[in-house]
Amino acid sequence: MTMPKAAQVFPRSEFLRRLAAVKAEMEQKDIDVLIITNIANITYLTGYTAKTGKDVQAVLVSLKDEEPTFITRRQDAPGGRHLMFVDSSRVIGYPEDLVANPDPHKDEWDAIIDLLLDDGFGRREIGIELKILTCPVVEKFKRRMPEARFKNFDRINWIRGIKSDLEIAVMREAAAISDAAMLRAQEVIRPDVTEVSAAAEIISTLINGVDGKPGGDLASFFLCASPRISTPHIRWTEDVFRQGSQANLELAGVRHSYVTPLMRTISIGTPSDRLRRVHEAEVAGLEAALAAVKPGATCSDVATAFYTTLQKHGFEKESRCGYAIGIDWTEPTASLRTGDLTVLKPNMTFHLMLGNWIDDDFGYVISESFRVTETGVETFSTLPREIFEV
Amino acid sequence: MTMPKAAQVFPRSEFLRRLAAVKAEMEQKDIDVLIITNIANITYLTGYTAKTGKDVQAVLVSLKDEEPTFITRRQDAPGGRHLMFVDSSRVIGYPEDLVANPDPHKDEWDAIIDLLLDDGFGRREIGIELKILTCPVVEKFKRRMPEARFKNFDRINWIRGIKSDLEIAVMREAAAISDAAMLRAQEVIRPDVTEVSAAAEIISTLINGVDGKPGGDLASFFLCASPRISTPHIRWTEDVFRQGSQANLELAGVRHSYVTPLMRTISIGTPSDRLRRVHEAEVAGLEAALAAVKPGATCSDVATAFYTTLQKHGFEKESRCGYAIGIDWTEPTASLRTGDLTVLKPNMTFHLMLGNWIDDDFGYVISESFRVTETGVETFSTLPREIFEV
Repeated sequence: MTMPKAAQVFPRSEFLRRLAAVKAEMEQKDIDVLIITNIANITYLTGYTAKTGKDVQAVLVSLKDEEPTFITRRQDAPGGRHLMFVDSSRVIGYPEDLVANPDPHKDEWDAIIDLLLDDGFGRREIGIELKILTCPVVEKFKRRMPEARFKNFDRINWIRGIKSDLEIAVMREAAAISDAAMLRAQEVIRPDVTEVSAAAEIISTLINGVDGKPGGDLASFFLCASPRISTPHIRWTEDVFRQGSQANLELAGVRHSYVTPLMRTISIGTPSDRLRRVHEAEVAGLEAALAAVKPGATCSDVATAFYTTLQKHGFEKESRCGYAIGIDWTEPTASLRTGDLTVLKPNMTFHLMLGNWIDDDFGYVISESFRVTETGVETFSTLPREIFEV
Repeated sequence: MTMPKAAQVFPRSEFLRRLAAVKAEMEQKDIDVLIITNIANITYLTGYTAKTGKDVQAVLVSLKDEEPTFITRRQDAPGGRHLMFVDSSRVIGYPEDLVANPDPHKDEWDAIIDLLLDDGFGRREIGIELKILTCPVVEKFKRRMPEARFKNFDRINWIRGIKSDLEIAVMREAAAISDAAMLRAQEVIRPDVTEVSAAAEIISTLINGVDGKPGGDLASFFLCASPRISTPHIRWTEDVFRQGSQANLELAGVRHSYVTPLMRTISIGTPSDRLRRVHEAEVAGLEAALAAVKPGATCSDVATAFYTTLQKHGFEKESRCGYAIGIDWTEPTASLRTGDLTVLKPNMTFHLMLGNWIDDDFGYVISESFRVTETGVETFSTLPREIFEV
C-alpha cells in the first residue's frame, strides 16, 4: 500500500493564515525568501511532526509562492509529503550522500543553497534565523551567495505567540493528558516504590492519554525526589521513595507537537511546616499573578503581582516565573519576569512556572499553564492547587 | 536532609583519564582553556546527566587545574554538585536574572566571559566548539575578549570515540534494555492493537529496564508502521496495527546517558516476498560488514563490504550504513560510509544502521550496535537477525 496523506490536524486555511502573517512581516522587512530551520517553526508552518534530530532541513517561504517548500534528507521526504499540508512536489529530498560527508567543503547546506540559487534568489533579500545558525553555516551562505543580502528574521516565534482557537483546542487536549499523568503520579508514588517504576507508569499515561486522545510524543520529564528536591532537571533515579520524602514533578502532555506543562509537589506523608508555608506563599502568588492577566497588561505586571505577593509571605524566587508555550514547550519570546514589557493579547499562552529551588536542601514546585482571554485568564489544568499528599 | 553526592557511576580515575587525553590535545594545540557547551561532552568530562534543555552552561577545562569547572544557571548548580565528580566549589551558578534577559546586550554568556576574565584568560588561547556555537555568541566572545585568541576545538568528540572498558560495560547494560524492549514489542504488536498502546508498553520497558538495571532516560523512539514504512522518523500514530502490516522499530536503552540503539522489522502475519528478499540481502550485507570490522580497517572498508554484498543481492541503500555511538546516541565523528577513512581501533563503538527506505511505499530496518575488539567485532545485542513475525 502506498503512503497516503496523513489525516490533517489543522485545515489548509489555518496554515494559510499563519503564512499570511509571516509574509506580511517579510514584506515589511523587504525579505523575498525565508530560510526556516527551527523545528518548531517548521511544524508551525507545515504541520510536520516527525522528529529528525540534528539533521539539516529547512522550510523556504517565498513571497511568490502560496505554499512553502521543505528540503530535507531524502529518507525524510516521504514523511514530509505524508504529514505536511503542502503539495507533494513541495517536499524535496537532498541526496543522502551529503550527510556526514567526508569532504569538509560540501554538506547539506549546499543543497539548500543550490535550491535557492536555482530559484533565482542569488541577488535577493534573504531572511535567516541568525540567532540559531552556527558561524560556519552563515559563512557558507555569504560565500556561496555573495550578492544576496541576509537579514535576521525571528518574527515567526512571535507570530506563534498568539494562538488560533484551533491551537487552543489542541493545547486543552494536551493539558488533559498532563492532568491525567499527574493524577497517576498521585496513585503510584508510595513509600518503597522505585522512582523508576513510578516514572514508567506516569510516562505510560502521557503516551496513552485520555478520552481517546493519546499523547503524540514525549516532552521533557523531571521527577526530582528527596534528597534531590533542590534542583529541577534530574529525570529520575534508581532510589525508592521513602516515608517523609517529597517529589517535585514537571511533565507535559503533547498533542500534535503542542505541549501544555504542569508541575506539582507530592508529599509522601504529612508535609513539613516549611513545605506548607512555602506552598501557601506560592499559591497566593500564583493567584495574584493570574488575577493580573488580561489583554493590555504586560508580562512584567503579571510577574510583579507574583513576586510582590510572594515577598509579603516572606519568600523570594530568583528565576523568572514563566514563559510563552506552544509547539515543543517553550517559545523563545516573552517571559513572565520583571522588565519584560510584552503586552498580553487574547490567546497568548504561558506556563506560569513557580518552581522555586530555594536552598541546597529544599525546593518546591507548582505551575499553571494558561491562555489570555478577551477579559482575563483561563487556566488549562483542572487539578487543585494543592500539595499532593500520598 | 541535605543533598549528598550521587553514587558515582565512574571512579574519579576514569574522569582524570578522559581529562588527561583532552589536556594532551590542548597542549598540542597551544590552548590554555576550553569552553565546552556540547551536553554530551559535558557529561563525558564530569558525569553530569541532568538535562537542562536549551539553557546556557559550560564546562571550562584549564591546563592549570586538575578538575574542570561547571558554570550553569543557579537553579541547576545543586544538580551539578550532586552529579559531577568534581569538588562542589567547582560548580558555579550564574544569576537567574540572565535567563531571557530583556536587555539584549546582557545574557548568560556574559557570566561565562566574566568568569574567564576573572581567571586571567583575557589574553590567552581559548578553545571553543566553533561548529555548534551561534554567530552572536562567537561575536560576543570576540568583542568582550578582544585580546584572547579563539581556536576551534572539536577533539573531545573524537576522544569519546574510544571507550574505556567501564564505558563498554555501561553500553552492554543499555543494550540489554534495548533487547528487552524489542522483545516486548514482539509481544504487544498485534492486529487491532493501537500503535499508541504498543509504544507505551515498549517505552515502559525502556524505563524499567532488565536485571535491576533500569533505563536512566528516554532516547529517541520511532515506530513507523504501514503505510508509513517508507520513512524513518515518525514517533507513532493513532492507527491500529492490521493483519498484513509491517512495523519498523528504532529504539535504544539508556544507561547513565550512554545509548545502545537497535532496529528490527516486525511483520504482522507472513512477510511478503519483497520483504523477505530485502531482509536476506540486508542480513548478508550486515554479516559482511561485521566480518570486515577489525583494528586497522577503515570505516570505508566496513561500508564497502556492506554495500557490495547488498548490491550482489540486487538492492541499493542510499544513506550511510552507520555512525559512532556513545553518550546521547550519535557521535558527530566517524561514519560507516564509503570514503570515511577513520581507522578502527579497539573499543570504538558503532551503530551499524541498515534502515533502508527504498520506495515511497516500502522500507525495511535492521541494525546491530557493536564494538571493535582487539581482533574483530563484538555485537551488543543477543537478538536474532530475523524479521520478527507476529
